[in-house]
Order: sequence, then structure tokens, then C-alpha cells
Amino acid sequence: MSKARKYLSLDGEFPMHRGGVLRAPTIAYETWGELNSRADNAVLIFTGLSPSAHAASSVDDASPGWWEEMVGPGRPIDTRRFFVVCVNSLGSCFGSTGPASTDAATGQPYRLTFPVLSLEDVARGGWEIVQHLGIDRLHAVVGPSMGGMTALAFEILFPGRTHSLVIISSGARSLPFATALRSLQREMIRRDPNWQGGNYTADTMPITGMRLARKLGMVTYRSAEEWRIRFGRERIAAEREDDDPFAPDFEIESYLEHQANKFTGQFDPNCYLYLSRASDLFDVADHGASVAAGLAKVRARRVLIIGVTTDFLFPIYQQRELAELLEKPGRELEFVELDCIQGHDSFLVNMDSFRPVVSRFFAAVRGSVASSG
Amino acid sequence: MSKARKYLSLDGEFPMHRGGVLRAPTIAYETWGELNSRADNAVLIFTGLSPSAHAASSVDDASPGWWEEMVGPGRPIDTRRFFVVCVNSLGSCFGSTGPASTDAATGQPYRLTFPVLSLEDVARGGWEIVQHLGIDRLHAVVGPSMGGMTALAFEILFPGRTHSLVIISSGARSLPFATALRSLQREMIRRDPNWQGGNYTADTMPITGMRLARKLGMVTYRSAEEWRIRFGRERIAAEREDDDPFAPDFEIESYLEHQANKFTGQFDPNCYLYLSRASDLFDVADHGASVAAGLAKVRARRVLIIGVTTDFLFPIYQQRELAELLEKPGRELEFVELDCIQGHDSFLVNMDSFRPVVSRFFAAVRGSVASSG
Repeated sequence: MSKARKYLSLDGEFPMHRGGVLRAPTIAYETWGELNSRADNAVLIFTGLSPSAHAASSVDDASPGWWEEMVGPGRPIDTRRFFVVCVNSLGSCFGSTGPASTDAATGQPYRLTFPVLSLEDVARGGWEIVQHLGIDRLHAVVGPSMGGMTALAFEILFPGRTHSLVIISSGARSLPFATALRSLQREMIRRDPNWQGGNYTADTMPITGMRLARKLGMVTYRSAEEWRIRFGRERIAAEREDDDPFAPDFEIESYLEHQANKFTGQFDPNCYLYLSRASDLFDVADHGASVAAGLAKVRARRVLIIGVTTDFLFPIYQQRELAELLEKPGRELEFVELDCIQGHDSFLVNMDSFRPVVSRFFAAVRGSVASSG
Repeated sequence: MSKARKYLSLDGEFPMHRGGVLRAPTIAYETWGELNSRADNAVLIFTGLSPSAHAASSVDDASPGWWEEMVGPGRPIDTRRFFVVCVNSLGSCFGSTGPASTDAATGQPYRLTFPVLSLEDVARGGWEIVQHLGIDRLHAVVGPSMGGMTALAFEILFPGRTHSLVIISSGARSLPFATALRSLQREMIRRDPNWQGGNYTADTMPITGMRLARKLGMVTYRSAEEWRIRFGRERIAAEREDDDPFAPDFEIESYLEHQANKFTGQFDPNCYLYLSRASDLFDVADHGASVAAGLAKVRARRVLIIGVTTDFLFPIYQQRELAELLEKPGRELEFVELDCIQGHDSFLVNMDSFRPVVSRFFAAVRGSVASSG
């Protein structure tokens, strides 16, 4: 367990957005930098579906974080200036309470007795951390992918609690194409006989379902163009191991194998199901008569929306919609359309494109945020 | 069994492109219209991965075919003028010999003892039919999707045997994105415990794997844009049947269920695996030092290439590549880029876009093909 990971154990009941309660849940988080005396230099990061709160390395945990090049001293989200907080989503399995956690009432893991998870719950988990840290108003809330939807939920549920909002490769709701893909990933796990209605054990995990879901995930996270350039029709160099006529032939198949192997065992299958469905259920329009009405509740003075033209999980028109509907007098809104070829995952792997955009956004407030020194 | 279906049983050995032989295989086909006295009005259609030879209804089989609106009297491929032949791919399971057929040598189904299938073998199956029907030279070879690659294989293996070539939503080879998706579909079937290394029985079919593969297929065959317009975020009207927290919520999930139900049981899983892999293995560049060198073997005087901008299984740049490389002096080449929103499947469902293009191409030869009357 990382020394950098901190835990907030909440007292009493945590009412869930779509019904049910959690008793005294825990939210895990990490921080970088120092909160200044005016407590106005805090940046809250919500994650995509699968990462932990370990966004970047630190003295307490030198291992690289999932957004290592974005967060740190001298990085675009500069921890010499900002007090950065990243939360592990409620419902996840990296320290926060989720379906894999023990339900104190029964002494057994929640599994499918965990209440329906919504990104509104994840957002409120973040707000609990913010209050706990003595922060009344954040400098910025940042969210890529599912984290972008969570950031929107945060702004809608707690309006006026952040000065700036950064939404990356995300949208106001899940569209049916993304829902189809996520629904299929969930079905792959649920159809694995080892899933056993969620009652798998550590020895009989639905590994096959998780591997298939991860492979489909990789397909949706990247782009055809990237893979064409990167893999072409390269064959696997090694001799075929056995006489299975359907063993991988191509480098792209070997790459997916490698990605599936890396992922499996790290993530709890039931947690994956809950977070995946929470993404599908999210809809800004649930907070008003329409997406526009929901977004009208956003109060941030500065908004940065970034999208990637090759993203087909959250297509560019979803970011364009956000930019159009969030534009209003008195708000500084920037919409940046990037031509990266890496698809949805570009924010993780194409730093040359993302670094300048995020750097410029945070650098522009140099005068208004006091140094933490 | 359809009365319209005809069978050609070949004598002797059928050598396979990548090694191995089939003994006396059968190729199933259907025909429409009449071969004229000069035997120069024949149109050969190769299919995508899953259809049978039943492209259109006829007196002998009134059920609608998979390309009903494209083939028939007064249709774009007009059976009053053309003698139309559609073949069931070798390796498929609708009358042609494939992995589900009985191997006469053992009295058992071939299953995985079936030799590696290539689209070159499928093309040669078509050529056997053409010869059997007494046709020396075809008026046209037409192929959508996998059938387009088969049509290219046909032209390369049997150059000069067709006057015209129509390639729809296809390409010179499979690219890694499409291979990743097909590889994943194959893995879904192979990981189903009921697959049993290909040795399933009629009572223990890998239904789950086939259903998942079909659902992923539907995702790759259509487009995000179509589903956004068609389904939006519509919820399923009916009450949830049980307390499964991951039961379908959205219309898009219900639609995929329906599609999976329709498909399963129709198609033999091993046949699916063989045809899917044949698509991935195909590469025009295997017939020359490069794609260009392979395509230089094509002799057709008239070529029509059609692509759809929302197709992400065979993206539009693959059709553009074909058009660019097939352009040469003395050849009449037309490349049509259609803005249909239905993605790869547009050729099946958007007749308003496809009908005029195909009609015009075949109507332009009115003078050169004698009436069949």
C-alpha cells in the first residue's frame, strides 16, 4: 500500500444519488504541493474509470502516477503553485469503499448488494475530501473521460465551489454507441462462468471476462489511424506456440494480449461493472429539463474544454456541445480541438499536444493564486 | 432447404491457398435471370462474412434475400438483363463445404481439421461455379465488405475473366483496427467453455460467445451517429424483469439483444471463426511486392468503388486507396464516397444512397449486353 495514499472515513450515512445508503464509507485520495494560507490554490482531479488516486509520484510514493507528466513541480498542473488533490472514485477498489469492500453490517463484501452507483456519488465523495481539507472554494476541478462527467456533476451539485473547470475528452452524457460498447464489456464479465452473479472468490476470478473487456476497452480508447501507423500488418515474430489455428497472427493481437495481461488482477470485476454502469447512467439533463438547463447550473468563471478528433468513445461533437452550451457572458471559455491520432487515450499518451494547452490555462492565473511558499 | 439453392459438387482435390486440400467439396449458389446466347451477361456476387447465396427472392424461394432491393427485375442489378449468380463462400455453412461439413475421410465434421481458409479459396469456389455454368467471361464481379476482398482475389487469380468490377465498403487488406475487433470476436467464441476446442455439439453450442461476437459485430457495422439519432438515451419501456442490477437500461442494449437473438443458431461458430480469420489474413500485397503491385494484376475495364464516410471497419481511406491504385489509362474508374450515417452496413440498409450509384453503373452498359429475352 502506498504511503502517499490518505483515507477519509466518513461518519454516519452517505445517501446515494439513486437510492440506498452507505454506512461510514471511506474515500481514498492523494495530495501534492501545499494549500496556501488563503486556501485558494487547490485543484481537484477526478479520474477516468480505472485509475487510482495516484496521479503522480511524490516523496511518499516514487512510482509514476497515471498522469505523471501532467502533475508535478514544473508540470502543467504545477505542484509548486497548486495544492493538487486526486480522489479515488467511490465504488472503485483502490482505497475507496466499493463493491469489493466489506459491508460492516454483514461482515461480507458488498458485491451486488452495493447500491446503484452514480457519478453524482463520486462527485460528492470528492466534495467530502475538499471540505475535510478545509477548502471552501477550489481553484479548479479537472476531469478527463469519466472524470469529466464527474467534474460536471460536481459543479452542478456544488455550484460556485470552483473558480475553473477543465473537461477533457468527455461529454454531458453517454451516447448510445459508447453505451453499447460499455454494455458489451459488462456482459463479457457477467457471462464468464466464474463471475457467479458477482460471488467470485480470489481463486476463481472472472479473468476471461475481464481480459475480453479490457481488450475491447483498448479498442475504444485508441484509434484506427494510430494502429495503422504503429502496427500495420506486422506479424508476430515468434513461432506459433501450439497448433491452435486461431492463435494470434498479428502484432496488434499480441499488443492486446499484453494490455489484457497488465490489467487483469488489478481491478475488481464488480467495481468495474458499477463504475461502467455509472458512466452510462450519467446525464446532465437529469439536472434540468435538458442538457442546456443542466449545464446552466455550472458557475465556474473559467472553463477549458479539450477534445480529440479521433476519439470515438466521446466524439468531438460532445466536447463541442459542452463548449457551445457553457458559453455565456462573463465566462472565459476555451474550446480546444486536438488532432491527436491516439483517440480517447490521447490525454494520457500525447503530452506534446496536451501539455501546452493545460499549461497555458493554469499559467494564465499566475497573478491570482498566491504562492504556497 | 430452399428450392432455389443449387449445388456444385467438385470432383477430386481442391488445393487450398495456404496449404492442405479438400476432397470433392460442394459449392452452393443461386441464380436469377437467364444467361444470354453470347454468355456475356453474367454478374457474380461474392457475399460478406455471414450471408448465404440467397441474395434475392425468386419463384423458387419467395423469402427476401440479404440484398433484396439490389437484385431483381427492375432493380439496380436487373435480373431481366443480367444473369446473376451469388455463391455461398467456401468455409461457410449454407450449403458450401466448411468446418461444419462432414469430412468423407472420417465420417465426422471437419471442425478444426478444416485447412486454413483464405479468401483466395472462396474466390476459386466462385470461379468453379462460373466455369460450370458455361461462362468464359463475366460481365461483372460484385463484392461488398469481405466479398469485396474476395472479388479482388478473384480478379488477381483469374485476370481478364470479368469486364467490370464493383467493390463496396471493402479494402485491399485488413487493417489492425479491424483485425483487433475480429480477433476479439473470435476470442469471445473460443473462450466460451461450450466451444470445447471446436468440438461442441448441437446441444451445447457456444451460444454466449456467438451472442457477444454478434453484438460487437453490430457495433462495428453501424455508426455512432446513426445510433445517436435512432436511440438517443431512450430507456427500455418495460419494467425490469429481475433484480439483476446490470440488466439492460437503454434501448440500444435491447436492440443489441434482439440482433444477437436473431443471429444465434443461424451460423456455425467454427465457420464464423474460419471466415473471420480469412478476412484478417487477406492482403492484396501477397500477390505482388506491394498493394499497388497486387492491384496491377486487375484487368477489369470498368471499376466502381463505393465507400461510406462513417464506416470504421473499412474506413473510407481504404476505398480511396483502391480507387487511386486502380486508376489507369484505358480503364473507366468511378469512386463514389457516400455520406450515409449507417456505417459499414449502409450497403444493406441505405438503398436510397446505393441504388442510384449501382443502377447508373449497370445501366451504362445497356448497349453492350444483349437482352436475355
